Amino acid sequence: MSFNTFGRVFRFSTWGESHGPALGAVVDGCPPGLTLSEANIQPFLDARRPGTSRFTTQRQEPDAVRILSGVFEGRTTGTPISLMIENVDQRSKDYSEVAKAYRPGHADYAYDAKYGFRDYRGGGRSSARETAARVAAGAVARLVIPEVTLTAYVCELGGDAIDPARFDAAEIARNPFFCPDPEAAKRWEAKVDAARKSGSSLGAVVECVASGVPAGWGAPLYAKLDSELAAACMSINAVKGVEIGDGFAAARLSGETNADPMRPGTDGEPEFLANHAGGIAGGISTGQPVVVRVAFKPTSSILTPVETITRDGEASEIVTKGRHDPCVGIRGTPVVEAMVALVLADQKLLHRAQCG
Amino acid sequence: MSFNTFGRVFRFSTWGESHGPALGAVVDGCPPGLTLSEANIQPFLDARRPGTSRFTTQRQEPDAVRILSGVFEGRTTGTPISLMIENVDQRSKDYSEVAKAYRPGHADYAYDAKYGFRDYRGGGRSSARETAARVAAGAVARLVIPEVTLTAYVCELGGDAIDPARFDAAEIARNPFFCPDPEAAKRWEAKVDAARKSGSSLGAVVECVASGVPAGWGAPLYAKLDSELAAACMSINAVKGVEIGDGFAAARLSGETNADPMRPGTDGEPEFLANHAGGIAGGISTGQPVVVRVAFKPTSSILTPVETITRDGEASEIVTKGRHDPCVGIRGTPVVEAMVALVLADQKLLHRAQCG
Amino acid sequence: MSFNTFGRVFRFSTWGESHGPALGAVVDGCPPGLTLSEANIQPFLDARRPGTSRFTTQRQEPDAVRILSGVFEGRTTGTPISLMIENVDQRSKDYSEVAKAYRPGHADYAYDAKYGFRDYRGGGRSSARETAARVAAGAVARLVIPEVTLTAYVCELGGDAIDPARFDAAEIARNPFFCPDPEAAKRWEAKVDAARKSGSSLGAVVECVASGVPAGWGAPLYAKLDSELAAACMSINAVKGVEIGDGFAAARLSGETNADPMRPGTDGEPEFLANHAGGIAGGISTGQPVVVRVAFKPTSSILTPVETITRDGEASEIVTKGRHDPCVGIRGTPVVEAMVALVLADQKLLHRAQCG
Amino acid sequence: MSFNTFGRVFRFSTWGESHGPALGAVVDGCPPGLTLSEANIQPFLDARRPGTSRFTTQRQEPDAVRILSGVFEGRTTGTPISLMIENVDQRSKDYSEVAKAYRPGHADYAYDAKYGFRDYRGGGRSSARETAARVAAGAVARLVIPEVTLTAYVCELGGDAIDPARFDAAEIARNPFFCPDPEAAKRWEAKVDAARKSGSSLGAVVECVASGVPAGWGAPLYAKLDSELAAACMSINAVKGVEIGDGFAAARLSGETNADPMRPGTDGEPEFLANHAGGIAGGISTGQPVVVRVAFKPTSSILTPVETITRDGEASEIVTKGRHDPCVGIRGTPVVEAMVALVLADQKLLHRAQCG
Repeated sequence: MSFNTFGRVFRFSTWGESHGPALGAVVDGCPPGLTLSEANIQPFLDARRPGTSRFTTQRQEPDAVRILSGVFEGRTTGTPISLMIENVDQRSKDYSEVAKAYRPGHADYAYDAKYGFRDYRGGGRSSARETAARVAAGAVARLVIPEVTLTAYVCELGGDAIDPARFDAAEIARNPFFCPDPEAAKRWEAKVDAARKSGSSLGAVVECVASGVPAGWGAPLYAKLDSELAAACMSINAVKGVEIGDGFAAARLSGETNADPMRPGTDGEPEFLANHAGGIAGGISTGQPVVVRVAFKPTSSILTPVETITRDGEASEIVTKGRHDPCVGIRGTPVVEAMVALVLADQKLLHRAQCG
Repeated sequence: MSFNTFGRVFRFSTWGESHGPALGAVVDGCPPGLTLSEANIQPFLDARRPGTSRFTTQRQEPDAVRILSGVFEGRTTGTPISLMIENVDQRSKDYSEVAKAYRPGHADYAYDAKYGFRDYRGGGRSSARETAARVAAGAVARLVIPEVTLTAYVCELGGDAIDPARFDAAEIARNPFFCPDPEAAKRWEAKVDAARKSGSSLGAVVECVASGVPAGWGAPLYAKLDSELAAACMSINAVKGVEIGDGFAAARLSGETNADPMRPGTDGEPEFLANHAGGIAGGISTGQPVVVRVAFKPTSSILTPVETITRDGEASEIVTKGRHDPCVGIRGTPVVEAMVALVLADQKLLHRAQCG
Repeated sequence: MSFNTFGRVFRFSTWGESHGPALGAVVDGCPPGLTLSEANIQPFLDARRPGTSRFTTQRQEPDAVRILSGVFEGRTTGTPISLMIENVDQRSKDYSEVAKAYRPGHADYAYDAKYGFRDYRGGGRSSARETAARVAAGAVARLVIPEVTLTAYVCELGGDAIDPARFDAAEIARNPFFCPDPEAAKRWEAKVDAARKSGSSLGAVVECVASGVPAGWGAPLYAKLDSELAAACMSINAVKGVEIGDGFAAARLSGETNADPMRPGTDGEPEFLANHAGGIAGGISTGQPVVVRVAFKPTSSILTPVETITRDGEASEIVTKGRHDPCVGIRGTPVVEAMVALVLADQKLLHRAQCG
Repeated sequence: MSFNTFGRVFRFSTWGESHGPALGAVVDGCPPGLTLSEANIQPFLDARRPGTSRFTTQRQEPDAVRILSGVFEGRTTGTPISLMIENVDQRSKDYSEVAKAYRPGHADYAYDAKYGFRDYRGGGRSSARETAARVAAGAVARLVIPEVTLTAYVCELGGDAIDPARFDAAEIARNPFFCPDPEAAKRWEAKVDAARKSGSSLGAVVECVASGVPAGWGAPLYAKLDSELAAACMSINAVKGVEIGDGFAAARLSGETNADPMRPGTDGEPEFLANHAGGIAGGISTGQPVVVRVAFKPTSSILTPVETITRDGEASEIVTKGRHDPCVGIRGTPVVEAMVALVLADQKLLHRAQCG
């Protein structure tokens, strides 16, 4: 309900700038009695962490999380959980150029237009560093939904898609691209290397599948599960599109081909013969896997000079030097997974509130 | 913040079922002193109204709106505006089949799984009739943002896209498809007729352009303008995808081709040389036109029998007879426009709250 | 979260003006499956209804409620419940005086200062008629908390308090003052008659006791049960003070005399030896009766001329003619009870959300 | 809207336990461009700080605040402001008794009933130490409302009230009781000393006057200024009652004596001849000083043994040793002031949102 808070009953607020002393999240509404320590959170931060391969920014951040409240004797108490990550590698570079001129595609101009001035060091609040706080909060959310298994991966990079026939979930952790298709991973290596060397950047599509979501989560009409997922994912830096199930492709199908027929399942639950809907109907989960797809634009930080204006409105040109991800979609993968976890935790508790 | 409320300071709540006595919206937080009467709202409801051509459902609803509160001597008072639309043509058909078996792709099964039972008459609360209340609320929102011009249209129907070169805004109101390309409109006529006759259905993509939005609306990080637009549009019935600007296509561009270079404009405002970003950077408007694209799936109401189960878990088949839209995306167009207006009105007031 | 909405997961919004065509409430987040019809609501509206004795305003309003949505085959569906009450007896009197000059103590001047103008007919939105919508919503809330018994009564009128030794709950419905002490009721009859005849008005204190509230409802820190009750009761027209348990009297006790000692109870629950705390500790219910006390000022509508100013800032005098309650606290009693019910229903669902 | 967040557009969330490593607040929605450093906050924390006289707890906490985000080059950026205060003097005493048995009047039993277990060290989240975070947030709120002057003081202690005729605002900072009447301060010294020595405790009444609030802040009906103030103040530890203006005394007045007549003022604004209403009518400020009065119970931490039960339901007795305030109302004074500042800042921005 606030600008930097997300969720309705399981809520989190994030704070912090790219070059401030620290960043963090406050998770409120977490059920009591869940086993939680830094060890539950750190692996997810490590997956998102910069500087782990040559395909991401070279900024070195340990992203070590500290739990400052809400946990007693290893269990959540039901009170707010404060998570803090100190910034370590804020390079004291010269920001005078970014301070003076707007980087097109970045938030620079929009922030100045809104607030009158901005913290220009590393993008300030608009930096993707903020997503570390989301990933930390997401790790807490996972504890709330142990019935759900989340699998996020890059399914397309620079326009080159994986082959679904070669999908192997075990591959995701084996390459620096969160790529489930080993052959695509090889192709992407060359692609990202080329972009990196030429100072260019690439877009990507991330898919997240949540299996184990029971039927019944979500709520008409403005807290629909798909509406919440769309808001959550579209709030991630560099995201320009969100699809549920077949998404835009569904708009090209006929009603017959788009149908998800049902038959009695062996376990008493219905069995679905297809999942064009991505596990959501009428804004409520159907018990099928929930499928979300998210489009990341190529980052606007490139070495090719781009025409721009200065704060004073003068014509200028800008080149974004510094340490940047050649493809932000890669490290966006754990962020998408975290946001999906956060939405599902909230929806589970909301469902319990109304329907017992 | 609630299940049937949308917005943060300019808020609306909707209520009502497809076959109940009425449906409505309560608009709260509207600035005082705006000239408002039913005449400001009715034209937008008429554009969304069913039964106006053979390409939409044949249900006949006048959708006459009544203002029950919040207006005095023709002006908004700042207190809640209650809008009511009576249902007139709830055909007393036999719903026993829908009551007993689930229509795949509809909310039937999900509602039962969530609530334990459901109002099955015409889909109850999950019916697209609810969108009449949104359109009424959206008409009030428009009064809050007179600086903005909204243009929504179908840009693709059944996989057949308009030709941007033939785009003519004046055409939109001249055909029953909200189609800005007269040649596409002709093709679509045949397409929709064929679907209608065979009892099939078609998807569509709706685009909405908001021009006149000043730079500075929106807010980091979870009330970003694009995040709010995504939530708003994804909450519309049958929507499966939302894009801002180039959307998924941006994920296939390089950083250079995706750039929106800036130069000093003649009016003191910057001039942008492209709008891949769809008028939003860092979640905040840039002053360029805001561009949203929304994918509607083909409605699941088709005459081809689909395998399903009954409420008792028995195998069955269902055919959705009755009066349905062969392409819900068409009448979804004014709904998308209304939702964009509602988001922008809220963001304008939020901006004013924080930034004066 | 909005100006005319109350609650977090069990939420209601009210709308309507004193002299508009109707007023109403939308209740959102109600659990599904509860038996609900107009018959569940009407008795509570009847208790609050004007014109039933010579001790209240003579405006004649049947206050007949209609349920427009959210109920199917006699049960709540989980979707928003729209409740409407038509205004019938809006007397077409001459409002030119009230339109021109401010009635001190009324909202007239404050509304004009805020909104620039106001619906002056009968106080518009600031009229206590709005509380009919709260009472209707409160009747729905009661269905959510069947374990709770609510008893509200006037415990002091015009400075004359009941004798706790003569407290008899059965008396409350037997006199027009919601007075549990029959002797006090007799004294009040004379008191209110005198005020009525002289065109004066009286204040009152209303107490509400909720028994059956289990230990554990409420939440630190800003959704504390007592904080929510205070907000709810202070939002009622003419209320100037709220106390929980001993309230201000507790500020005059020592720690020893204010203690509520505990001992093992016969039913496994603790037995408390006193209830100075009014059933709430740390913002969370203790299992004892929850006790709220609410101070109503005398209404500002009196026949004695009061010095005031006109809209144009000129010195003037005003006499509030018309049909008014000589003691608004009396009819405030069912309103307090409704607000307590609404808070408890919300807190029950919130507790379920977080603590299962 | 969440359990540990307060406010609608100017919002703050607090976190932290009495004996955790730190506590803090995140302030969101603050306007950009305000001059802010730790020096703006520390004096208010110092006023609330424990251990400064023998009349408060002897816990020694420097309560040094750090700003971790939201400020750049000495000015607020419009992004969330994270404030952190490290706990220093968490005495490693033996908590085994409090862990085992419930202290009547404290939140111990209620927390266990709600959450199943609790952080018993120093009261955990229910400790008044949390109010340090509110005071820090309140210091930020003050910057948002420079037009308002806040004056809070103890007006009654242990049943002994100040003499309004001797009110001297300059005295408030001159004694350890925030007492504006020097003679009362002398009497209270003896009173509190006696309570401290006997291991007893005392209640108090705190009054806060906000002058400079323009007419028009507040909103019907559930965000009324008085409703928000009541919620804010009732959420403070040990508070049992809240009054606006004459409060409960108004319930004993007639309509004539309770009137606040108006006449044209010299500055174009109306002049009020009385302020029984405490500056609020219809939930909206009138331009008069806003007056809130808050009742603090005597703390339940006393040396006299009180009958209680253990976690296992066994009969027991408890004596609350340790470092406690003999009168929590004293240090509650800066907390009340902070909460009033936070409400007013929020209402100012809300008013600007709707009314421009």
